[in-house]
Amino acid sequence: MSKPSIPKGTRDFGPQEMRKRNYIFDTIRSVYELYGFMPIETPSMENLSTLTGKYGEEGDKLLFRILNSGDFLEKLTPEERSTLLSREMARKISERGLRYDLTVPFARFVVMHRNELTFPFKRYQIQPVWRADRPQKGRYREFFQCDADTVGTKSLLPEVEFVCIIDEVFRRLGISTTLHLNNRKILAGIAEVIGASEKLVELTIAIDKLDKVGFDGVVQELEKREFSSSSIERLRESLCLQGSNLDKMEHLRQVLSTSEIGVKGIEETTFILELLKNTSLSLNLLFDPSLARGLNYYTGAIFEVKANDVSIGSIAGGGRYDNLTEVFGMEDMSGVGISFGADRIYDVLQALNKFPTEEEQVGRKILFVNFGSEEILQLLPIVQRLRSHGVIAEIYPEAVRMKKQMAYADSLHFTHVVLAGTQELQNKSVSIKDMKTGEQQTVTIDHLLNIFR
Amino acid sequence: MSKPSIPKGTRDFGPQEMRKRNYIFDTIRSVYELYGFMPIETPSMENLSTLTGKYGEEGDKLLFRILNSGDFLEKLTPEERSTLLSREMARKISERGLRYDLTVPFARFVVMHRNELTFPFKRYQIQPVWRADRPQKGRYREFFQCDADTVGTKSLLPEVEFVCIIDEVFRRLGISTTLHLNNRKILAGIAEVIGASEKLVELTIAIDKLDKVGFDGVVQELEKREFSSSSIERLRESLCLQGSNLDKMEHLRQVLSTSEIGVKGIEETTFILELLKNTSLSLNLLFDPSLARGLNYYTGAIFEVKANDVSIGSIAGGGRYDNLTEVFGMEDMSGVGISFGADRIYDVLQALNKFPTEEEQVGRKILFVNFGSEEILQLLPIVQRLRSHGVIAEIYPEAVRMKKQMAYADSLHFTHVVLAGTQELQNKSVSIKDMKTGEQQTVTIDHLLNIFR
Repeated sequence: MSKPSIPKGTRDFGPQEMRKRNYIFDTIRSVYELYGFMPIETPSMENLSTLTGKYGEEGDKLLFRILNSGDFLEKLTPEERSTLLSREMARKISERGLRYDLTVPFARFVVMHRNELTFPFKRYQIQPVWRADRPQKGRYREFFQCDADTVGTKSLLPEVEFVCIIDEVFRRLGISTTLHLNNRKILAGIAEVIGASEKLVELTIAIDKLDKVGFDGVVQELEKREFSSSSIERLRESLCLQGSNLDKMEHLRQVLSTSEIGVKGIEETTFILELLKNTSLSLNLLFDPSLARGLNYYTGAIFEVKANDVSIGSIAGGGRYDNLTEVFGMEDMSGVGISFGADRIYDVLQALNKFPTEEEQVGRKILFVNFGSEEILQLLPIVQRLRSHGVIAEIYPEAVRMKKQMAYADSLHFTHVVLAGTQELQNKSVSIKDMKTGEQQTVTIDHLLNIFR
Repeated sequence: MSKPSIPKGTRDFGPQEMRKRNYIFDTIRSVYELYGFMPIETPSMENLSTLTGKYGEEGDKLLFRILNSGDFLEKLTPEERSTLLSREMARKISERGLRYDLTVPFARFVVMHRNELTFPFKRYQIQPVWRADRPQKGRYREFFQCDADTVGTKSLLPEVEFVCIIDEVFRRLGISTTLHLNNRKILAGIAEVIGASEKLVELTIAIDKLDKVGFDGVVQELEKREFSSSSIERLRESLCLQGSNLDKMEHLRQVLSTSEIGVKGIEETTFILELLKNTSLSLNLLFDPSLARGLNYYTGAIFEVKANDVSIGSIAGGGRYDNLTEVFGMEDMSGVGISFGADRIYDVLQALNKFPTEEEQVGRKILFVNFGSEEILQLLPIVQRLRSHGVIAEIYPEAVRMKKQMAYADSLHFTHVVLAGTQELQNKSVSIKDMKTGEQQTVTIDHLLNIFR
């Protein structure tokens, strides 16, 4: 029998990793709940008609397709079997695929359940997604997404709420962050005033690299894409801004004054910043007109979060879109959504050594040493009483030598070990060993219950 | 654009169903944790070499297979393409399948991580599994399993612990249950003393139906399977037992006295019952020599739980097995495992109307009516302070007419609505409406914070 293995790009999570991952998910979940978001879950598999064509040609290739069950090839003629190419064949023998992200299934959900839902609808969803991508460091074929969206309103309050949510999540996790805020309308305004409206996508792709390559790099990129030199020169005054968020905003307001959409973008951003002044944010809020974000469906505010003390790219992001459900034939469903990158957040917490200890997370854990059946009969009710008070407690299952039992306690991070042999139990007492300090004390059974209650 | 749909046998879970499902999962999870079980998760997809041959021929057919990515048919000759049958073809174009249960992946996990794990290893795992079964009422193609296992010890303490865990879970859920307890060794003993050792599997299949068809039905079944009439007569005194658990045990001890394995089974069960006397169980514990359970890998204690007030079959079950990891080449890994049937438990709680209300589950929820941007600027810090005290609070995103905002509060079960127009805010006061009683009171903002803190 060959050694078992797991598919490339997938992972097992053992108890220690689970604790840490659950710490992240639980933090995100409880903040979402605090802001009135409600959980939903969708099936792991969707009809391919729901998934294909939503993620571009590249995305279609990365879908995991599920083979039809039953004798699927019976339906094909021998000619079809021999001549069909894989891609076409795949279409005939597979009708379902694994979820590629949470946004398309959410859009499908909204359309299917439109009559049962109350709008504005605020949902969160924390589930795995699958992509047949080439696995590499930090990129997996199965990974979790942690999304929240408010749909069915054009109000800017959701944008404000999401900034507060991001702030609260990273405050709780102890990660110092900078939130870059921009607005797609401002980018459209910039394109307009530099005379390159029809090249908006190319412009944003180039601008998005400002961070990495500096303005000179952006200039090179734009020259390659045949932007006129006057366009490029005018861009400088839109992007290379100094001063506070309000200073930058004031400057841009003048630069964009001739662009209706640009002015709209400035107004929206001003309103969002104005509201946020009335909250006490821990994060560093940065108005950043060079922020573009890849996904083309954003139409308003966009944001991206970076850790201040670890260099790892964006750890959360999101934005406003106008037409979540258009692809499924339902118009005019505007919304805002964000997503936390759980795997990167894990790496940041690991790098900063900011994960809580197991004791901080689950509380004290007590191991009762097993001296034999007679003692167990007497210990079991005591262990049950501790458990009824919410204390994690267990009896080592076998009466093996002490050394082995202590090694078990040590390896599984029990905070206390209780030793109670026949004689001690006759005196209604037990010994407690504190595994951190090594100190040992003998107490009555009543006192034991009081200590850990 | 045709209306979107989801694959047969799969489900969307909206917010209300999610609350109820999470209530079940959270209850099970927290009891598992209390007893020192640790969470693990395994990938949704496993290599087919891990999955196939583990669930019988029928099970293999029910595996969801994932199409290899890339141009998988390129590797086949035209002849192969035209002549291969589906089953053989499937083997060439698919190397991964979706998890069918949590036991095989757990066994694979134990073998792969044997050197990192501390034994005895107590893990729990709550994840979806997939089966290409014909969907019908109560049977889905994607459903959750909630398993816990203790492996690496032959001690009977885990059996005792699992009965306590089952008891605690259903006590917390408010479901009155009966736990049927038996031991495979007792069944082997019965087969031996009635002279039908070589027909153990057939015997247990027949016995398992005692509940439904009565002893006469079992007799008919056994006659069909050519059990001798003396065997059948001797069976009566093993199965048709009266009295308390201890009475039945005492009687069987004599009936099985000539069978070594039978006596062993009686001894194990006696020890388990003896230990359980020292715990205060809420459930009805029933020694039931007719309990057989389907899965043939059990070798010791077996248990099955039924709801007393709802007729729906077993809602939890499990047992002792001797060789979890044998199929992966690792010998002698004895353990005990249980599984809760979340979907059936959901139906039982629904039938008994025992789900907590949303308020009991998530606490009070407050909606602030939106009167316009001016008011929002002043309300936002108040809402943020409430949130910082853990109170779920939100501002309706748009300043639409009151009726619409109240309908939203009503539909989403907000417990309170806060009304604060310009004038009230000038007086530093707000009106609170209790959505249950309809009562309304005007309080200062400080008082508002005190009420909900």
